Amino acid sequence: MKALEEKIRRDGQVRPGNILKVDSFLNHQMDINFINEIGKEFYRLFGDRPVTKILTVEASGIGIACITAQYFHVPVVFAKKAKSLNLDGSLYITQVKSYTHNRTFDVILSKKFLNADDHVLIIDDFLANGCAVNGLLNIIEEAGATLEGVGIVIEKGFQEGGKDLRAKGVNLKSLAIIKSMSDSDIEFEEQE
Amino acid sequence: MKALEEKIRRDGQVRPGNILKVDSFLNHQMDINFINEIGKEFYRLFGDRPVTKILTVEASGIGIACITAQYFHVPVVFAKKAKSLNLDGSLYITQVKSYTHNRTFDVILSKKFLNADDHVLIIDDFLANGCAVNGLLNIIEEAGATLEGVGIVIEKGFQEGGKDLRAKGVNLKSLAIIKSMSDSDIEFEEQE
Repeated sequence: MKALEEKIRRDGQVRPGNILKVDSFLNHQMDINFINEIGKEFYRLFGDRPVTKILTVEASGIGIACITAQYFHVPVVFAKKAKSLNLDGSLYITQVKSYTHNRTFDVILSKKFLNADDHVLIIDDFLANGCAVNGLLNIIEEAGATLEGVGIVIEKGFQEGGKDLRAKGVNLKSLAIIKSMSDSDIEFEEQE
Repeated sequence: MKALEEKIRRDGQVRPGNILKVDSFLNHQMDINFINEIGKEFYRLFGDRPVTKILTVEASGIGIACITAQYFHVPVVFAKKAKSLNLDGSLYITQVKSYTHNRTFDVILSKKFLNADDHVLIIDDFLANGCAVNGLLNIIEEAGATLEGVGIVIEKGFQEGGKDLRAKGVNLKSLAIIKSMSDSDIEFEEQE
């Protein structure tokens, strides 16, 4: 998505430790008009699939998933990162390591909201090592649901998450794939 | 908002400890068509204010804030509940007690995304004791920004948060205010 690559080049900031800050428009402050363009692009890429639910994980995926869901006319379900007293005992539970926060946490989803009849599109802001997406894949498998695709806004192509998912045959589409990045330049992989 | 009251009566579940579960449409699974109606109602209530930013706190407020922001054509900024390695040192920080999770955590917002020129509408899913909203008010005050209003989907009118905010003169509008609730019935306060 050319407009996204331009926005990342213009507004993104590269930090030590392969961190790309896009918090001015994507995951702290959110440019809702631009995220609508992202939602339309996800619909262009996955709109032919019989999606019944969009699945993401809190927190930064939620807003993108909600805007995107408007084009698919399906509900969003977001997995939660900590056991809340508001959640019933009947839960899907998987573990996810967060390199950003440098810890492992449980990711939980109420069994009421995902079952074998569901056709799921996963949406998230970033894909690096793939821990979050793989956690959601575990939940989808446990539910017996069908994975229709994984839509990522920004993939760090120099980390393994995307390669591993594609090797597994996952229908993964990333709107921008970073080949390399430094203080001075961000290079993207060519896309159709 | 009558449609919301009906949905809470139909789909909400009252749990011990004054917990109202609305996770089938609001804060775990999200009914995006219905949340659009909520966003339109917030625009009806606050659309006359010169709002420049919608402020919420992760996680369950984010989706509602993003859908609502489409009607105001302004960005969303969401405060984060834990210090992320991705955040700069230049932060607004306040403490919020969560009765749901039974712990106190830091709520942080990058100073880049809120300043004295901003006119802020706070949006959140629930208001009970008001800890989350008061934390956001501290951040708005520290930023020197102007509070234009607080829009809440469900207020627990039998707890003190709403009364305290109105006593402070805050322009608080809750789409549904619960007067009392039990396994058998949920009673709402009359609204214009």
